[in-house]
Amino acid sequence: MEEIRVRTSARSEMVEITDQVQALLDRGVREGAVVVQSLHTTAAITINENADPFVVDDVLRKLDGLIPRDEPFYKHAEGNSDSHLKTSFFGPSVTVIVSGGRLVLGTWQGIYLCEFDGPRERRVAVQLLRAG
Amino acid sequence: MEEIRVRTSARSEMVEITDQVQALLDRGVREGAVVVQSLHTTAAITINENADPFVVDDVLRKLDGLIPRDEPFYKHAEGNSDSHLKTSFFGPSVTVIVSGGRLVLGTWQGIYLCEFDGPRERRVAVQLLRAG
Amino acid sequence: MEEIRVRTSARSEMVEITDQVQALLDRGVREGAVVVQSLHTTAAITINENADPFVVDDVLRKLDGLIPRDEPFYKHAEGNSDSHLKTSFFGPSVTVIVSGGRLVLGTWQGIYLCEFDGPRERRVAVQLLRAG
Repeated sequence: MEEIRVRTSARSEMVEITDQVQALLDRGVREGAVVVQSLHTTAAITINENADPFVVDDVLRKLDGLIPRDEPFYKHAEGNSDSHLKTSFFGPSVTVIVSGGRLVLGTWQGIYLCEFDGPRERRVAVQLLRAG
Repeated sequence: MEEIRVRTSARSEMVEITDQVQALLDRGVREGAVVVQSLHTTAAITINENADPFVVDDVLRKLDGLIPRDEPFYKHAEGNSDSHLKTSFFGPSVTVIVSGGRLVLGTWQGIYLCEFDGPRERRVAVQLLRAG
Repeated sequence: MEEIRVRTSARSEMVEITDQVQALLDRGVREGAVVVQSLHTTAAITINENADPFVVDDVLRKLDGLIPRDEPFYKHAEGNSDSHLKTSFFGPSVTVIVSGGRLVLGTWQGIYLCEFDGPRERRVAVQLLRAG
């Protein structure tokens, strides 16, 4: 198992980590998959477009509209119940196929750490799995 | 492959199953990952906070607000179309990294069976995968 | 690694691919899991009910209500920011347990390619992983 550290700079932010994940593959399996897992309950991992930065901006703005920070009925005292729901919607991890020692990703796909309660330093665990 | 049974007691409920998953690791791989998969289309698996129970309460209440049980346009006769959408939003499974024979989870992370159309008895399949 | 091609016929559509995934298992591992991964940022993979087609209709209609195609604040010029958010909500891939050479799925579970910006031809990568 390996670990990546990510420093975020806003409450909601998507930080691409594709290159850091790929760098960890160099010593590992050539055919299999890699699990990229957030070790936090208010930060998710997803795959989305890494070409036009407006995509991430639009995604985060619409997400904040659907799930605003405050609701009159929230009971959790830390004020980040929205961050917890966003994390389960995006998911705590992704499993990405590896072939020929490379991440298998479409033309526009990048792996993102999704910060939903930053800024903070976040830890991402990475594990390589072997093909059958 | 192993299987966990979970009895739920409400229509919407998150039941922590971290300990049951960990117990299945004792005979298996020490380095790899574990796939925890719901065998139902109205119950999901997620990872979220297991410290303050208000987190789960807030998450479920906001989720029910976004996706209420009834919509005038629903055609599915069982009256659980909301449960199906919630299940795809949270996801049918999680893949959790295993290292040193232990689940790799952050301080506040727990694995949850998410009941969206209970109460019922639910089946969760568990498979250990080997690191490369 | 293997690849499945799917031709979609509408902007939003869920196309079942369970049989194509199962067909790829015949030459592979008998115990493990299979990663089914979309190679696109506006098409997701999920598991949901494959019995009553009204379930998929209801899920897609409610999803379009929550995340309509147009918002006045969208900046991405391709007009598919909604498709990107839907893809992260449903997720780019699923990992399905395999046992005895068969996909382990509940009675009503089917694997779906979720088209959110069609019609297009879509590519789905499939990788078999070995149990520990």
